[in-house]
Amino acid sequence: MENPIFFLVPFAALTALLFAFYFFRQMMRESEGTETMKKIALYVREGAMSYLKQQYKIVSLVFIVLAMLFAVMAYFGLQNSWVPFAFLTGGFFSGLAGFFGMKTATYASARTAHAAANSLNQGLRIAFRSGAVMGLVVVGLALLDISVWYWVLDYFVEDMEPGHKLVVITTTMLTFGMGASTQALFARVGGGIYTKAADVGADLVGKVEAGIPEDDPRNPATIADNVGDNVGDVAGMGADLYESYCGSILATAALGASAFLLHPALQEKAVLAPMLVAGVGVFLSLIGIFLVKTRENADMKQLMAALNRGVNISSLLTAAATFVILYLSGLPNWVGISFAVVTGLLAGIVIGQTAEYYTSHSYRPTQKIAESAVTGPATVIISGLGLGMISTAIPVMTIAVAITLAYLCAIQFDVANMLLAGNLSMGLYGIGFAAVGMLSTLGLTLATDAYGPIADNAGGNAEMSGLGEAVRKRTDALDALGNTTAATGKGFSIGSAALTALALLASYIEEIKIGLIRLGHTTLSLANGATIDTHRAGFEDFMNYYQVSLMNPKVLIGMFIGSMMAFVFCGLTMNAVGRAAQKMVEEVRRQFREISGIMDGSGLPDYARCVEISTKGAQKAMLFPSLLAIIVPVLTGVVFGVSGVMGLLVGGLSSGFVLAIFMANAGGAWDNAKKYVEEGHLGGKGSDVHKACVVGDTVGDPFKDTSGPSLNILIKLMSMVSIVMAGLTVAWSVF
Amino acid sequence: MENPIFFLVPFAALTALLFAFYFFRQMMRESEGTETMKKIALYVREGAMSYLKQQYKIVSLVFIVLAMLFAVMAYFGLQNSWVPFAFLTGGFFSGLAGFFGMKTATYASARTAHAAANSLNQGLRIAFRSGAVMGLVVVGLALLDISVWYWVLDYFVEDMEPGHKLVVITTTMLTFGMGASTQALFARVGGGIYTKAADVGADLVGKVEAGIPEDDPRNPATIADNVGDNVGDVAGMGADLYESYCGSILATAALGASAFLLHPALQEKAVLAPMLVAGVGVFLSLIGIFLVKTRENADMKQLMAALNRGVNISSLLTAAATFVILYLSGLPNWVGISFAVVTGLLAGIVIGQTAEYYTSHSYRPTQKIAESAVTGPATVIISGLGLGMISTAIPVMTIAVAITLAYLCAIQFDVANMLLAGNLSMGLYGIGFAAVGMLSTLGLTLATDAYGPIADNAGGNAEMSGLGEAVRKRTDALDALGNTTAATGKGFSIGSAALTALALLASYIEEIKIGLIRLGHTTLSLANGATIDTHRAGFEDFMNYYQVSLMNPKVLIGMFIGSMMAFVFCGLTMNAVGRAAQKMVEEVRRQFREISGIMDGSGLPDYARCVEISTKGAQKAMLFPSLLAIIVPVLTGVVFGVSGVMGLLVGGLSSGFVLAIFMANAGGAWDNAKKYVEEGHLGGKGSDVHKACVVGDTVGDPFKDTSGPSLNILIKLMSMVSIVMAGLTVAWSVF
Repeated sequence: MENPIFFLVPFAALTALLFAFYFFRQMMRESEGTETMKKIALYVREGAMSYLKQQYKIVSLVFIVLAMLFAVMAYFGLQNSWVPFAFLTGGFFSGLAGFFGMKTATYASARTAHAAANSLNQGLRIAFRSGAVMGLVVVGLALLDISVWYWVLDYFVEDMEPGHKLVVITTTMLTFGMGASTQALFARVGGGIYTKAADVGADLVGKVEAGIPEDDPRNPATIADNVGDNVGDVAGMGADLYESYCGSILATAALGASAFLLHPALQEKAVLAPMLVAGVGVFLSLIGIFLVKTRENADMKQLMAALNRGVNISSLLTAAATFVILYLSGLPNWVGISFAVVTGLLAGIVIGQTAEYYTSHSYRPTQKIAESAVTGPATVIISGLGLGMISTAIPVMTIAVAITLAYLCAIQFDVANMLLAGNLSMGLYGIGFAAVGMLSTLGLTLATDAYGPIADNAGGNAEMSGLGEAVRKRTDALDALGNTTAATGKGFSIGSAALTALALLASYIEEIKIGLIRLGHTTLSLANGATIDTHRAGFEDFMNYYQVSLMNPKVLIGMFIGSMMAFVFCGLTMNAVGRAAQKMVEEVRRQFREISGIMDGSGLPDYARCVEISTKGAQKAMLFPSLLAIIVPVLTGVVFGVSGVMGLLVGGLSSGFVLAIFMANAGGAWDNAKKYVEEGHLGGKGSDVHKACVVGDTVGDPFKDTSGPSLNILIKLMSMVSIVMAGLTVAWSVF
Repeated sequence: MENPIFFLVPFAALTALLFAFYFFRQMMRESEGTETMKKIALYVREGAMSYLKQQYKIVSLVFIVLAMLFAVMAYFGLQNSWVPFAFLTGGFFSGLAGFFGMKTATYASARTAHAAANSLNQGLRIAFRSGAVMGLVVVGLALLDISVWYWVLDYFVEDMEPGHKLVVITTTMLTFGMGASTQALFARVGGGIYTKAADVGADLVGKVEAGIPEDDPRNPATIADNVGDNVGDVAGMGADLYESYCGSILATAALGASAFLLHPALQEKAVLAPMLVAGVGVFLSLIGIFLVKTRENADMKQLMAALNRGVNISSLLTAAATFVILYLSGLPNWVGISFAVVTGLLAGIVIGQTAEYYTSHSYRPTQKIAESAVTGPATVIISGLGLGMISTAIPVMTIAVAITLAYLCAIQFDVANMLLAGNLSMGLYGIGFAAVGMLSTLGLTLATDAYGPIADNAGGNAEMSGLGEAVRKRTDALDALGNTTAATGKGFSIGSAALTALALLASYIEEIKIGLIRLGHTTLSLANGATIDTHRAGFEDFMNYYQVSLMNPKVLIGMFIGSMMAFVFCGLTMNAVGRAAQKMVEEVRRQFREISGIMDGSGLPDYARCVEISTKGAQKAMLFPSLLAIIVPVLTGVVFGVSGVMGLLVGGLSSGFVLAIFMANAGGAWDNAKKYVEEGHLGGKGSDVHKACVVGDTVGDPFKDTSGPSLNILIKLMSMVSIVMAGLTVAWSVF
């Protein structure tokens, strides 16, 4: 390591963690309110913690088995010996990010409710800064993990062929991305099933059948519902975005190592560059966090403006700082790369705005869904599915344009030679930077996202503690804002997942190269008779060697399997939610029937039983789809070889990306169509139109909070698994 | 043309048409029953004919514009001058197949009802033989069209480079595939919107709100519903399968021309072979048709067995005859190719059986959906979507295995060299034969499929004419059988579409080759410096030349767009159904409110108004999605070139295939879950469980009969458009 600028990265990491701790302490100093409020918060906190412990137990087992497997692979020379450790740390830190975020959220909800009793601004401040704890913990831990590993590997990995050392370092570091992805998938799937089973169950019986409001303490599923917000929306999202953030940086670093393979003097700079952009983003996100405040009696628009001010200013500053830091980094094409980062930032904003347009009830699409409820639930579902499918057009076109621009910027618009050897890897490096750019302000955007469930829980606490109409109205305003930021946030994570997955595709080829070298294949004999030094072979050479073209039936079969994986994975998680929700409904109905006095408040519902149903449903059902995501790429590799795996990844990516957007937007639109009616349109609460909209909302729950967001991770986890298992694919494959 | 064996093909075509005419006459000799029955049949017939006329008017305009465009392209040397004519005949015959099928169906429904009044066997006979008219018309017209064009082009196209003539002939013939696809897409989309708008509207108000049975004459939408069965399920399906059948034969013939490019002595045999297999299949389908009969009081199982007997025997005979005819054809690898045909036949059966398993209420999956209705419509939708998604696994794996086996059979298991130049095109030729095999017994399988709507309409006629319980029970039995064969039939068309689309991908490359030669690029300079004669270049050379690898961003962008197209197309058609259905619901509600005496039979509902709503909804909404399917491939070609188009086609194929299966199976399962409850389970008709199931069924209607089946055509039409427009892509493209 010659470059002292590297130390900006651990410095940014520590700064983020320091501020996270500061915001956490600040929040803890606030009062938690009345005894009832404290008690409810304690219930939720304990429920969430006990769920998380149980989940970590199961996931730990999976991690131990996989780490042992990697150790065996390393022993047989199919991987290097750092891999099991990197894998474990990735999983550990991803889990830790979710854990800290959730701990903060469960402490913050009652405090937010209490503060909202004084003023809206105080409520916003506490909820938002608690959300910022999670944002900062995620980016802090991620950059810390990255810098430590980079530093350790740089010290220990021996020097080899010029340029090759950094390729080994960066691809090894991708393994901790796999750890993070695995943890994230379990967190998203398990947490997603938990929260939506509780939510659907609570709504179907409570709202629809018994006609009691949301979060009413008489509803036995209400504690489970609030616990679910924490384990699914907070812990799950934290682990998820830790993974996205690491994945984009590591994949881009790996691409840098290969794009500058033949220029060892620049290679280290290229590897550092994405970390530096991320590091700079941390500081500028912090500025944004301090800018978020609102005045009393702010309406929805002003609240939104308060958040947007923070996001916009820190995005602008990050864009400007990117040019500076990349200039300092000394990359020859720093201008182009900087523009690639800006492309990513902009694409994220466009995708987020599209999500808002399609899912907010201020616009026609969602209003039309509400109108279709006049003819009953069936037309609500049909129009919601239709809207969700159509809403994929703009995000896909945006990603297409972003890919094109990022690629062309990175190769300095050398259009005539865009697919020439050097340009291909440089262009892909640019696409990686678009992903890094999209996530560079994650410290802040995640704060706006994580703040939602905190506000939601604050509302729950206020309702259950009987804090009165005025407080509830304020927490509702905060919650509604959270719904919009959630839709935007999902856009970011889906968009960045698509770009990161493209970058990972290139890393896969790098890992195949390393696998070949490790097995002694130091030369490649191409079909046309040419022989190439494996060390120096470019992407095109590997494409030719493995015949990864669209006419190769192995590629096509892989693609079919990849598309299928996206659908089957969603089907399994949808069904898991459906089954668990059904049990929840039966249990809540049973309690209303058998426990006397629930409705008049003289009897206490059995909250624990509902928590148990969600826990069991989640634990049982999360294992199979998650393991499928790990096993299918390995099997595809063994049977159909490198070209089959490439097909699998690309098929999964293109179908999964579109499917994820469809599900997120349809779900969000149904949710807000219901809110639109609840605001008094088309007959208002309790009308038949409202009931039809509740059906839509219920179907949308697993769409937007279980299956849809898990797809992002699925796409990347399949890539990560393929990368880590590349040695196996090279060594054995049937065809 | 040296090979007299060719004349088997027109002979098979004429035989099929002759028997179709014979069955039609036989059916027309039966009595149409009472005056009421005649009157109702006349209403439906007139409604259907007037709709079809209006649809053909609009479609004709599109055809004229496109044909003129092709003429201009031919003038500028971007296409040959046969193309506009081939395009027009394809469209004409596809429409004609649908027209004849529908005419027969509308004459047969009252006759089936009347015959069912005598005996079940007579009812089955009339309905099934009328369905056979459509099956035979489709295969007859298709083979006639193919033989005439082949004969004409063989006579007129000049001899050129050895082997090149047949490449030109076969790729020109693909253009009439494009005509057929275009017609089919309009028929499926327009007909699908029409029928489901009427069906959904009739069910939502009639069954759910007013509580009157299906097909009750008091329901104003009932005539529109019955018209819809004819224009959507009969005319739409006829045009669709005409296109599938032609497409598979023509694509395989084109692959034969290119696989044997360097062996002119064998080339003509290779081009004829798929036509011969199809021709043989016609004769053996006829045998199967005569084998379908049942005894009186047959139950569902026995009826199914009667159909299965016919299908199984003619499949077996076709498999055996394939070996004989391919031996006679003189292809060197006739054994392998015959096994590829068998692979296709088997894959079709497996996919069909899977569809039956997932959609029949004799099995657990559909029963589980019904059980989930206990907790309301939301859980019905969630579990149906979950089931549909999971149900994609087996068909995708079946297609993967079929592709692998057909490929390996065709190259005689030369696994080590499976991607070698000659083997690649031979293997793809094998995949084409799998598609031909799957559709070889279409004359019969389409009869079992087309029979469904006839039986359905017969039931409608019986109900409206008040024929009494016993008759209605018989027609219900025939109808229920039709639902199962419909699910199986959809499996066939989706499976064959996937295989055909793969074959078309190869034809696209052939057309690109022709385009290059036409523009004077007689040599190709590859990236590695080699120069290749364009005439003799293989698929791999073009893949290298255009860098169609998975790392090429243009390919990746194309794939994203392709996946998106599948979703956006479905979204548009879903929304069209939703909107038209909503109008229908409002109209039916209005009539119940405003026209006095409808419910007690003293007032007559205004059927015509409902027919008009469906017609307008269909006509207006069918244009945009259909044109999108034509324009997007052209634009993608112009902007992203050959590699972008290849990505588009593959992305659309992999996502579209999985999406189509998902939609077909989810829709079928919802339909039968409702039937399961109607049979008395879980509370039976009128219970809350039943109402929840009706919501599922209603959502499923556009899934299984509008969006899902249109996807097959979308996939192939995009390929066909790309093939026909290849000249344009070669001449201009931005990147």
